[in-house]
Order: sequence, then structure tokens, then C-alpha cells
Amino acid sequence: MRIKLTLDYVGSRYHGWQLQPGKDTVQKRLEDALSKLCGEEIHVVASGRTDSGVHAFGQVVHFDTTTSYDIVAYHRGTNNYLPASIRVLKAEQVSEEFHARFSAKQKTYMYLMYESTQERAVYSERATRVDTLDIDAIEKACKYLIGEHDFSSFMSTGSDIKTTVRTITDARIEKQGNEYKFFVTANGFLYNMVRKIVAGLIRVGTGKMSVEDFAKRVENPDILSLPFVAPADGLYLVSVEY
Amino acid sequence: MRIKLTLDYVGSRYHGWQLQPGKDTVQKRLEDALSKLCGEEIHVVASGRTDSGVHAFGQVVHFDTTTSYDIVAYHRGTNNYLPASIRVLKAEQVSEEFHARFSAKQKTYMYLMYESTQERAVYSERATRVDTLDIDAIEKACKYLIGEHDFSSFMSTGSDIKTTVRTITDARIEKQGNEYKFFVTANGFLYNMVRKIVAGLIRVGTGKMSVEDFAKRVENPDILSLPFVAPADGLYLVSVEY
Repeated sequence: MRIKLTLDYVGSRYHGWQLQPGKDTVQKRLEDALSKLCGEEIHVVASGRTDSGVHAFGQVVHFDTTTSYDIVAYHRGTNNYLPASIRVLKAEQVSEEFHARFSAKQKTYMYLMYESTQERAVYSERATRVDTLDIDAIEKACKYLIGEHDFSSFMSTGSDIKTTVRTITDARIEKQGNEYKFFVTANGFLYNMVRKIVAGLIRVGTGKMSVEDFAKRVENPDILSLPFVAPADGLYLVSVEY
Repeated sequence: MRIKLTLDYVGSRYHGWQLQPGKDTVQKRLEDALSKLCGEEIHVVASGRTDSGVHAFGQVVHFDTTTSYDIVAYHRGTNNYLPASIRVLKAEQVSEEFHARFSAKQKTYMYLMYESTQERAVYSERATRVDTLDIDAIEKACKYLIGEHDFSSFMSTGSDIKTTVRTITDARIEKQGNEYKFFVTANGFLYNMVRKIVAGLIRVGTGKMSVEDFAKRVENPDILSLPFVAPADGLYLVSVEY
């Protein structure tokens, strides 16, 4: 049967999501745990890979197994074989048609920043330091992100994709105390798209780029990709919707 | 000259504050960094040690050096020799009378909890999972903590102290989203005192102990010490006042 798992993890503890020979990755840890639990070799398919250092509140995967345990075993049982920095939060039986990657309708990412004149240890690997940001300017820039656009100007090369057009349905920033949280929801993301958007928004928020310049890059895919990428540390995959 | 440093650190990365043969501790990392910077063996004196797993937003130390660099060197320069999980936030030249431990007038600790029916990876080593807490009951219990008391019922043995009397000047709980933050300020803390108080408050907040029972333990030092200690993961030394 096919099982869907929702899990969170601390990405900085691993060399990213994807299996890599000789590297400690989240996928490897999860497949090892499930293989032990099921007594057979288990391969998982994720909604998408996360890069080294990127965290998840709600990554989704599916896998097939010949076992037919009570559903709680795939949830609590798997956690017995996982380190505390990776937790299965939910397990559901799904039909054979469900595919963690291809069935995904939209994803939400969060990017965490903290306002400080200097780096702080408690935020290391968890958030990115920024100067005071002009929230009004960032909110204006966010409005240009909404809708269907060719996001070529916010992509790093290195991925094999058919189209660079994506639809962003939500993009907003919140300030709580000394923390800024940027949320973005889209039907899909290009390689480094969130980190390039954040790098652009930080430049807008610190007056290094005008809202108009930012808007031009969203509207014109022929502008060279922004040569800045915000660090992985602040990025969290919040949820995947099906 | 004598230098006072304020620093933050991720305690879960180290075997506590204090030097221990063959162990990676925060004190060892800091003394190594300062010794390299100053070109002489530097020993630091902290406001107090923090146990393994306990974090700091504002630990304070002092040390003596024959060097007389510009003060910024002890701040930024030391950080060059420290990992990102330990950061010097401030350096000040102080008089020879200043002593990080004996001059301390009061300290504030924060204890971070998150409400969830299950453990979450993103909070691992950073916060403690709790069920829904009755904030009103905890606030009532907190009122009994304020003032001068013999806190023998909230102490683990193992420390060499003259008196078990301490004065708590502030004790309060805040809820933000799914997080609870307990703050406590006192002129000093006994061994495991915050973690025992938190364990008691969690019992009050989940209905396992009445506010009256909690109050009795504060008022009567002859009651056996509470046999519960909240995990180190959620504990943060916020600040030391002089």
C-alpha cells in the first residue's frame, strides 16, 4: 500500500534532503528508518528536495510497502528509528494515484530574518541577520510577485525544467519583535527562487533596490538573474497542499 | 586590564559551560579564542555555569589580560576565533573590582515551551513540548514565587552553597501562538532551581498539582524537593545585571 508522511526537520544537521553517496541526508535517514520498520527496502518520493541547511515544518513524502501495519506504526513507529531532528508528524494511507511530487498543487515557504547589528549565536543556522527593513517598501514589492510570471530573473541554473513560469498566490511579510517572517505560496518554485526573491526583498527593504526595479525583474524574464541568493539558514518549507 | 564580555550561545552544541577534560565546552572555546587573540593564556570567570543543553542570550564573563587592544578587538576579534554557535555581543573595559560572578545583582532566565501533542524536530534541543497549559493557574502560582524564600524544595543536591534563601523579583508566563515563555528574575539561583520551578508550573498548568500545593513548596523548605526537573533544552540565560 501507499503511505503519505508529513514530517519536519532541522535541515542544518544534514547535507540536504536528497540521497548522496556517503553523505548524511534527511532522505537517507528516513529511508533507513522506514526500511527497518518495514523489514524491506523502502524508497521515498518527496514533494521536492530541500537544499543543505533548509528546514521543514511540513515536508511531504510517499512510499510503497508490502506491509499493512496499523497506520500509527508508520507514524510513531518510524519516529523510534529517527533522530530528534527529524520527526514524522502524520501518516495517512493514500491511493496509488497519489504522488508526493506530481500531485502537489501548491507549496508555502517561510523565510526567517532577525534584525540586529551583529550575528547572534542563538539564530545561527536558523535565521538570517538583516538591518532594519522598510516593511512598507517590501509590502509594495510583494504585490508585484502575486500572479503568473516567468520567474527566470529569480532562478539559479542547474535544474532541468520545462517552464520557468510559476504562479504565486500569496507573498507577505510580518514583523514580530526583532523577527521578520516572509511567507510565499506558489504552485511551484524554481531552483533558488525563494532565496533570490528574499535577497531582492532585503535589497528593497534596505533601500539598495527600488520597488520599481524589483517589479521590473518580476515582469521581465530577460533581465539577468539577480546575482544574490539569501542564505539557506533562514528558509523553511512550511507546507505542501494537494 | 580587566574586560567584561557579554555573549550568547547554543548550549546544545557543547557539554555545558564549564571546562572538563577532553570535553568540548563553551568555556573552553572562549578561552581558546581569547588566548589566540591575546597571545597569552586567558582564563575567564563567568556569572555562573550553565548545564549541558542550556542556552544563553546574555552570559557575562570577565578576564584579565596584559594586552591593551582597542576594545573592539575583544569583541569582533574574538568572534573571528569562535564558531557561529558562540558569539561575543559586547566587550567593555571594567575596573579590577568587577567580578562576573560576585558582582552580579540579579539574573533572568527564560524557559521556552511549545504546545503540541507530539515532539517536533524544529524545536528539538531548543524548547520543551507541553500539553495545553492553564495560564491562569500558572499565573497564580507565579505570584507565590515572588519574594524572599528558602527554595530548598526547588533544588537538586550537588552544589556547595552557604544558604538556600533566594529572592525572586519577577516570575511570569507569556503565550505567543503555540509557544509559552516563562521568565524568572532573582538575585541568584540554586542548582536546577529554574528547571524544578518549571516542572512544578507545568504540573500546575496541566492540573496535576494544585496552586496551593505549589505554594506550600515555596513556603515550606522542609517539603521534599520536587522529584521532577524540566529538560535543559528549553532553558535560556537571558541576562545578568550588575
